[in-house]
Amino acid sequence: MTHKIAILGASGYTGAELVRLIATHPAMEIVALSADRKAGMEMAEVFPHLRHLDLPKLVTIGEIDFSGVDLAFCALPHATSQAVIKDLPTSLKVVDLSADFRLRDPAEYEKWYGKPHAALELQKEAVYGLTEFYRDQIASARLVAGTGCNAATGQYALRPLIAAGVIDLDEIVIDLKAAVSGAGRSLKENLLHAELSENLMAYSVGGKHRHLGEFDQEFSAIAGRPVHVQFTPHLVPANRGILATVYVRGEAEAVHATLAEAYAGEPFLNVLPFGAVPAMKDVRGSNFCHIGVVGDRRPGRAMVIAVLDNLTKGSSGQALQNANLMLGEAETTGLMLAPVFP
Amino acid sequence: MTHKIAILGASGYTGAELVRLIATHPAMEIVALSADRKAGMEMAEVFPHLRHLDLPKLVTIGEIDFSGVDLAFCALPHATSQAVIKDLPTSLKVVDLSADFRLRDPAEYEKWYGKPHAALELQKEAVYGLTEFYRDQIASARLVAGTGCNAATGQYALRPLIAAGVIDLDEIVIDLKAAVSGAGRSLKENLLHAELSENLMAYSVGGKHRHLGEFDQEFSAIAGRPVHVQFTPHLVPANRGILATVYVRGEAEAVHATLAEAYAGEPFLNVLPFGAVPAMKDVRGSNFCHIGVVGDRRPGRAMVIAVLDNLTKGSSGQALQNANLMLGEAETTGLMLAPVFP
Amino acid sequence: MTHKIAILGASGYTGAELVRLIATHPAMEIVALSADRKAGMEMAEVFPHLRHLDLPKLVTIGEIDFSGVDLAFCALPHATSQAVIKDLPTSLKVVDLSADFRLRDPAEYEKWYGKPHAALELQKEAVYGLTEFYRDQIASARLVAGTGCNAATGQYALRPLIAAGVIDLDEIVIDLKAAVSGAGRSLKENLLHAELSENLMAYSVGGKHRHLGEFDQEFSAIAGRPVHVQFTPHLVPANRGILATVYVRGEAEAVHATLAEAYAGEPFLNVLPFGAVPAMKDVRGSNFCHIGVVGDRRPGRAMVIAVLDNLTKGSSGQALQNANLMLGEAETTGLMLAPVFP
Amino acid sequence: MTHKIAILGASGYTGAELVRLIATHPAMEIVALSADRKAGMEMAEVFPHLRHLDLPKLVTIGEIDFSGVDLAFCALPHATSQAVIKDLPTSLKVVDLSADFRLRDPAEYEKWYGKPHAALELQKEAVYGLTEFYRDQIASARLVAGTGCNAATGQYALRPLIAAGVIDLDEIVIDLKAAVSGAGRSLKENLLHAELSENLMAYSVGGKHRHLGEFDQEFSAIAGRPVHVQFTPHLVPANRGILATVYVRGEAEAVHATLAEAYAGEPFLNVLPFGAVPAMKDVRGSNFCHIGVVGDRRPGRAMVIAVLDNLTKGSSGQALQNANLMLGEAETTGLMLAPVFP
Repeated sequence: MTHKIAILGASGYTGAELVRLIATHPAMEIVALSADRKAGMEMAEVFPHLRHLDLPKLVTIGEIDFSGVDLAFCALPHATSQAVIKDLPTSLKVVDLSADFRLRDPAEYEKWYGKPHAALELQKEAVYGLTEFYRDQIASARLVAGTGCNAATGQYALRPLIAAGVIDLDEIVIDLKAAVSGAGRSLKENLLHAELSENLMAYSVGGKHRHLGEFDQEFSAIAGRPVHVQFTPHLVPANRGILATVYVRGEAEAVHATLAEAYAGEPFLNVLPFGAVPAMKDVRGSNFCHIGVVGDRRPGRAMVIAVLDNLTKGSSGQALQNANLMLGEAETTGLMLAPVFP
Repeated sequence: MTHKIAILGASGYTGAELVRLIATHPAMEIVALSADRKAGMEMAEVFPHLRHLDLPKLVTIGEIDFSGVDLAFCALPHATSQAVIKDLPTSLKVVDLSADFRLRDPAEYEKWYGKPHAALELQKEAVYGLTEFYRDQIASARLVAGTGCNAATGQYALRPLIAAGVIDLDEIVIDLKAAVSGAGRSLKENLLHAELSENLMAYSVGGKHRHLGEFDQEFSAIAGRPVHVQFTPHLVPANRGILATVYVRGEAEAVHATLAEAYAGEPFLNVLPFGAVPAMKDVRGSNFCHIGVVGDRRPGRAMVIAVLDNLTKGSSGQALQNANLMLGEAETTGLMLAPVFP
Repeated sequence: MTHKIAILGASGYTGAELVRLIATHPAMEIVALSADRKAGMEMAEVFPHLRHLDLPKLVTIGEIDFSGVDLAFCALPHATSQAVIKDLPTSLKVVDLSADFRLRDPAEYEKWYGKPHAALELQKEAVYGLTEFYRDQIASARLVAGTGCNAATGQYALRPLIAAGVIDLDEIVIDLKAAVSGAGRSLKENLLHAELSENLMAYSVGGKHRHLGEFDQEFSAIAGRPVHVQFTPHLVPANRGILATVYVRGEAEAVHATLAEAYAGEPFLNVLPFGAVPAMKDVRGSNFCHIGVVGDRRPGRAMVIAVLDNLTKGSSGQALQNANLMLGEAETTGLMLAPVFP
Repeated sequence: MTHKIAILGASGYTGAELVRLIATHPAMEIVALSADRKAGMEMAEVFPHLRHLDLPKLVTIGEIDFSGVDLAFCALPHATSQAVIKDLPTSLKVVDLSADFRLRDPAEYEKWYGKPHAALELQKEAVYGLTEFYRDQIASARLVAGTGCNAATGQYALRPLIAAGVIDLDEIVIDLKAAVSGAGRSLKENLLHAELSENLMAYSVGGKHRHLGEFDQEFSAIAGRPVHVQFTPHLVPANRGILATVYVRGEAEAVHATLAEAYAGEPFLNVLPFGAVPAMKDVRGSNFCHIGVVGDRRPGRAMVIAVLDNLTKGSSGQALQNANLMLGEAETTGLMLAPVFP
């Protein structure tokens, strides 16, 4: 059986990544692609690398007949997403890649995103899309909220440790390095090649990055008490990938054992041998996440280093993994592509 | 039916690329991987990005039992390859990725590679591996010689034009820009990140590049007279990809029409609309080749611009395409992966 | 004696490069910096790398008192420049870095830039700023028109050859590779790091690039007959630098000897030993231009390869070199900074 | 007066950087350049970007007549350096860029470098070369030991804070990102462009990096008690630059005020306004260090972010700064070159 798929917001990087992944998915067919400002264009004009595919033309969302659609990926900007999804048929399965439905508490949403939520009913219904930890709810959900790409990376490093109580909850520092495609195709001076190449800088320093809302929500829920990590994202001169260096207090071997056990059966999460560390490019273009644990020279301190591809495991790959579950397919279908190296 | 595959020389980039591609191939199973200097190691130690795969350990070639192998990819260095293949069972199908069997004339081989060929009988038997032009011979071949990656790019731009007589055979200039993975994983100063990044330079200038041997052989054979192109390769600060800017004398629209017609049915060769030009990254990580044609302001002159990924369509993808034919599989099996962008 | 300098359009890359170079110039002082949209800001806010300098605040051009200014560098966009310079005091020396005064024939200007020139009187007065070839006129000029960066590179490779008659004037092909800072700090999708990094593409193919106007004007003037080169610029994933591969017909050794002789006394132009080729990064951040000549395997054909830094020798360094002449300083003052490698 | 300078080990990146800087130094002349394996070659053959300079040929150290030399920069590998310096005339001033004389305690040297020191007498005499903190001793020293580039970055961020007692000495985490030229011109697989570009990884994780020896020595000396920081260096896909994100416990504004006051008169150390953060490229090619301080959302926690160019302020620029002092020149002579951006 072939599921009919729509991608709303197909002219951005996560939209293109969804098309790339679905291109070799054996049980999905793309029947609609939207991009309001580029409606009428062929996808190959917007993304020449997709030229070989037989894809529908880009249209406006209003032009899509959703009656023939089984599931829509919504790869629209924050805030736009909630307005659009509110008006979609309630029978349509939706995987949203924006930030709009990640935070369950409306006050937290307003705090981090600066305005009240416009679709509170949907927000209640939405399931947080970190597949490995919300698998059952996702399988039966109608609306799944994709996680932030940084938020996913930090959570893969930390969730089992918080749950197992093997680290000090008040002493978590996430120093994260993110490639530039996470910022999307938006035209900003600091995203120009001339500015970013040979450069590197921290941003949203000091507790201002919105993905902290996700960390706070999820880590506090696991711990049953407030957990507020320290989080410094950096923009690095690369296009794809996130590497998070997470500083924790706890016995390094226990930290490693906890992660190794938690992810033993996971198809996409690989815990390296104790003492080994992953490199950002080891997972490029794939849905895998590699995690390493090293003890510090000072006993009781350890580093957890996690890498994933922000466009794949951090957004579009994760979205497809969730869609597989929602549509009754095997979770890994279409997602076992090996990383592209070098 | 699953074909049993061996990869000889699996610790280089083309070896790793073969593993990446075969990883999702539905009818191939890797049963042996060799790497003399790294024998005994796990592939994941040499290439951590392949960690998720269940692969045989690296062994020496001598340790492989070829009786259970249907086809071997030989991704060994030039000169080594002929010595190894000579000693393989004569019943074994072989796709060689080295330069050893590309040139049919032993004198030409000696001229370009600096020493006599050590396996002349095999050289006679070998079929040149530019799939789209040697399809039938490849399907029935036992030994196929993969082409040079630069040689493939230039030939895709030029072969139909030479065959159709629409360009001046004495006035062909190929100005080629190649990413660094084409140089392999060898340790050379000019391949260091600190040297190559932010840099760009011509090399083997003036008719010294060995792929000229292939151009001369193939173009002269098509034309039925000697054809000697002018060829300047450049090393560019990128990891994957080749872009060839080919200057020809002829009517631009005829040039475009000839290429469009020649490649109309080809699954991997895309000729862009007249006047459009491809970018190197449009095919990254894929087996596609995009070709554009533009007329110059001076009538009778045109530029053909072709791009492909040197590790995929330029070597390992091409090799797999040929192996599919040799094993009776559909030519595109396992090769329809979409390019990875950005 | 210290010359008082104004820089109009100081918030772009060429403006910043002028400040960088003048920072260690012993006989110049920056007394005014303009940037209409950023008026009121400190230069350090716009370019943090200039934080250590004691610079005037950015103002609008209207706010500058030119009575205390000896020379103004005009680093404004094309078309804006002519409107601004028209209104400057006629006693003020001006080095313009835009394209506005490069073409002496108003019809050519209109052809390449799409509208009539708005300051024809000034256009007549302007001296073309390729220092080594217009030295005397520049020394006594009031208004000097900086050359295009690509145009400078091609001319350094070709002018002496055309003048000496050692090459075929109808068979010149310039295949040029340019780093991205030549496109300025403008916000365009193809200039994003995510798009350009790992990429490479031709642009303005087929005779559409505006610097052809300069090539045509200069080469035809030297030859005393029309000369129309074939010119294909490529955008490469680097920030600074141009490498031009120029294909000519002539005896390679004569080509080399002609260039070597022509540039023997030039402080910034280095002709390499015959057969050696320069790399783009060999001149990064400096005012030098390196030129190599190689003969092709086919007699009578040669390649001239020239490299320079588009922001230095290609624009701001050239502008400073000209300003030195106009102000009676030694031409090399402040410009002998060694290239930054790696 | 012109000081006669020798550079031992001139064929590496720090050697080339010394030549670049001295090229425009008004009071230094390079009279000897050594490179054992490249003796007999011109510097322009090893580093074409220095082609415009009139430099002595490369020779072996044994060939240098030190009687005419005022000061030698020793840019040799670790361990080689001590053996060479031991045999130099005792009257010769020496600035060593290796690690050989950084650690005052022979046991610490042996612990971090794995073998006993071979020139203990010299080690006692050597002054640690972090100019701003050892100025007077450097001015009168005969032998100065250049600091590690990572060690310099971390110390600029932390020394005044430790001295002032405004941070918790047991809770210091240095997450450092370093460009690849810090690894020198050595041929290692992970330094290849194909491997490092688009990549990023931690190394020497968990307290294994040798620069910890310097941190321990210096910070403990300032504090008057043992201080052992947690330090994780990362290799980033850039050629020059270090960015250190330092996590401290203390009041952010006090941290900022302490640094701002400590560096108020320093020509090369710039403390940004409170809350602003520097980018790695803001100092590229220059001797400047920019430092920013930001408070975390959790009171009592702050981040200090420091950037410098590893080849300039982190090694060769620092070495020249020290040489200026040792030779009685103004400390900033030849070092006020503005950063190269973009």
